Amino acid sequence: MFSPLIEDLIRALRCLPGVGPKSAQRMAMYLLEKDRDAAGLLAHSLQQAVERVGRCSRCRTLTEQAVCALCNNTRRDHSLLCVVETPADVLAIEQAGNYHGLYFVLHGHLSPIDGVGPADLGLDLLGERLGEQEEERIAELIIATNPTVEGEATAQFIAERARAKGVKVSRIAHGVPIGGELEYIDGGTLAHAFNSRTAL
Amino acid sequence: MFSPLIEDLIRALRCLPGVGPKSAQRMAMYLLEKDRDAAGLLAHSLQQAVERVGRCSRCRTLTEQAVCALCNNTRRDHSLLCVVETPADVLAIEQAGNYHGLYFVLHGHLSPIDGVGPADLGLDLLGERLGEQEEERIAELIIATNPTVEGEATAQFIAERARAKGVKVSRIAHGVPIGGELEYIDGGTLAHAFNSRTAL
Repeated sequence: MFSPLIEDLIRALRCLPGVGPKSAQRMAMYLLEKDRDAAGLLAHSLQQAVERVGRCSRCRTLTEQAVCALCNNTRRDHSLLCVVETPADVLAIEQAGNYHGLYFVLHGHLSPIDGVGPADLGLDLLGERLGEQEEERIAELIIATNPTVEGEATAQFIAERARAKGVKVSRIAHGVPIGGELEYIDGGTLAHAFNSRTAL
Repeated sequence: MFSPLIEDLIRALRCLPGVGPKSAQRMAMYLLEKDRDAAGLLAHSLQQAVERVGRCSRCRTLTEQAVCALCNNTRRDHSLLCVVETPADVLAIEQAGNYHGLYFVLHGHLSPIDGVGPADLGLDLLGERLGEQEEERIAELIIATNPTVEGEATAQFIAERARAKGVKVSRIAHGVPIGGELEYIDGGTLAHAFNSRTAL
């Protein structure tokens, strides 16, 4: 229906998560009709990000710098290291605002079926971090992988390695969300909340 | 929170209609983490479309060709011309599938307050089309601008010019949508449906 270049653009826009054929068409028409400057800027930003964004050499989060701003921040507690699955998890924890240590991003979880092993998650780099002495010594490793089967397996795997190096390991608590109503919580979470109850 | 290039990308993605800060962040993370090839392709498609897509010299729809595929299609009825506000309207009518004439895209409607006059809508080009003789003569001009105040004013303006050139003019019908329930139709549409009733 549309000309080839417009069809290409609509098809390309569908790579975005949550964008189906109708939204992609609406986006293409909007950009071409109303805001070509923004479209040009978006093309440029995408190109730059794809070419230049890599991983922080310390924590593996996405950044175009060799070492990310968080790892370079001397005002943070460098003796705490929190392991998360994705860069978006870093943002979620930062937005909560009460953790002031550093992060380590796995970019996934152990999944032998998909061929994702320890090397893909940078666990050798994490091992080096855990073995560091003096100023950069990690006092506590906080594991914040997702509470899924794979996330738990990954947490266990990392915990064993850390303990072997004599580093204290903890896992963030899982249970009923603050402000949540018991009535609407799923059974698995409730069962976990009972099993992990703490003394008052 | 993110590095400058990633922040730029998130900001640029927000130019897309229907994309807020959270969606933009999710899209940026998805593209950088999971699908850099698609992101590169999207950047390329955007660049190409922004640079090369212009307007058909006959009907003003968006295309990178000098004359669009619809205007070039000899199997369509070149004596019927349908005036619409946007290229998306062309698609909607094509998908309905019972119109086989040509189109003329205004890219908007008359709106003196916003400084949109006849020249911005290509009405001089439309005038030339209506004045054409012999093979390319327009037998009927069907006006399908939106049933808004501006769309109606635009329709009246175009209709007067077409009548002055001796071309038959019609307006698509407005009323209760097929399959719609009277109970849920707004008052303006119902009033119009009564005023425009046809003899049985």
